[in-house]
Amino acid sequence: MDIAVLGTGSVGRAVSARLDQLGHAVALGTRDPEATTARDDHAAWAATSPGVRLMTFADAAATAELLVNASSGVVTLEVLRSAAVGDRDGTVLLDISNPLDFSGGFPPTLTVKDTDSLAEQIQREFAGLRVVKALNTLTAELMVHPGTLPEPTTVFVCGDDADAKATVTGLLESFGHADVIDLGDLSSARGAEMFMPLWLRIMGALGTGSFNIKVVR
Amino acid sequence: MDIAVLGTGSVGRAVSARLDQLGHAVALGTRDPEATTARDDHAAWAATSPGVRLMTFADAAATAELLVNASSGVVTLEVLRSAAVGDRDGTVLLDISNPLDFSGGFPPTLTVKDTDSLAEQIQREFAGLRVVKALNTLTAELMVHPGTLPEPTTVFVCGDDADAKATVTGLLESFGHADVIDLGDLSSARGAEMFMPLWLRIMGALGTGSFNIKVVR
Repeated sequence: MDIAVLGTGSVGRAVSARLDQLGHAVALGTRDPEATTARDDHAAWAATSPGVRLMTFADAAATAELLVNASSGVVTLEVLRSAAVGDRDGTVLLDISNPLDFSGGFPPTLTVKDTDSLAEQIQREFAGLRVVKALNTLTAELMVHPGTLPEPTTVFVCGDDADAKATVTGLLESFGHADVIDLGDLSSARGAEMFMPLWLRIMGALGTGSFNIKVVR
Repeated sequence: MDIAVLGTGSVGRAVSARLDQLGHAVALGTRDPEATTARDDHAAWAATSPGVRLMTFADAAATAELLVNASSGVVTLEVLRSAAVGDRDGTVLLDISNPLDFSGGFPPTLTVKDTDSLAEQIQREFAGLRVVKALNTLTAELMVHPGTLPEPTTVFVCGDDADAKATVTGLLESFGHADVIDLGDLSSARGAEMFMPLWLRIMGALGTGSFNIKVVR
């Protein structure tokens, strides 16, 4: 599949590298490709994923069959505007972002919560996209290599479009996720996003982000 | 131990019955013992836990060595005032409540979130208590009989007092919980309480509340 990953942080890198490894055609979108290329650690990373093509948000998104929002939640809407995803009606957007504001230090606050979610904000602004929230509940490496944990764990999909959720579920399964729970319509993303404060405290308690939850039933 | 359980809903019943079974002296506090006794289903339940003594909130709390808040989050502060727990300086309060407001239907909203928690509200109003948040992240029966799930799962403790957390952890272990993660000070209860929206959506997806999360690491 022709996939655009928007955002070059740890999530964007992990997801784009994994998609490349799985044989997809991957465009990695960034605000300023020259600035990204100039980063100290970029060349070493890029060498491990030679198939990933770095380009502007708009160029990356222009022809992709699937969009992945891997940007930080506080800039997500701005990134999606830069990517002109309003022109991509019908396209599936996998939204991995978390609406966390770290500007006041730790713990971060949520910029949206309880009666709304960032995923719903995206869906409202870009009504033609088919937004699916997923993978925001675990750390970047485990999103795409869940098999490094000692046993299978759980991830979630939230969205209003059943076909879009099926597409994303298939992608998650290709990453190695064996237990994908469909939480329902996109308003269920509120729950997935509000999991972050607990996730952050568990990370603090364990001293590592290398964990995930398994829904035992 | 002499324990007062405040609240006669599903949580208060499950916890008081289990504590009675484990040999503790259990007082079950309610607003109006006569009204509680008159409930259709009370006699049948009480017959299964003959050692649990039903009394007013204040009578139950008066001499208890450990207090358990099993009331609904929207009435918790009022219940604790009725129980006069402000007179019980130094006593450990295990707070199981969730700040959920169902008055607008499903999904409920959180009455406090993100930058504060119900547990912290309790601690601020009753500064002499040693508040520990725990067990609010799973359904009543699994709080006290986690062994009915097919494998061990995780619960959390949050609080400012290490000895109080050790007391509650011991209680949780006596219920059968093998993995108790100490999330840190009482502000970590924000994370535990904000897990509820995700819990409720998982319950909706699975069609049952008989599940719990296991932190796999």
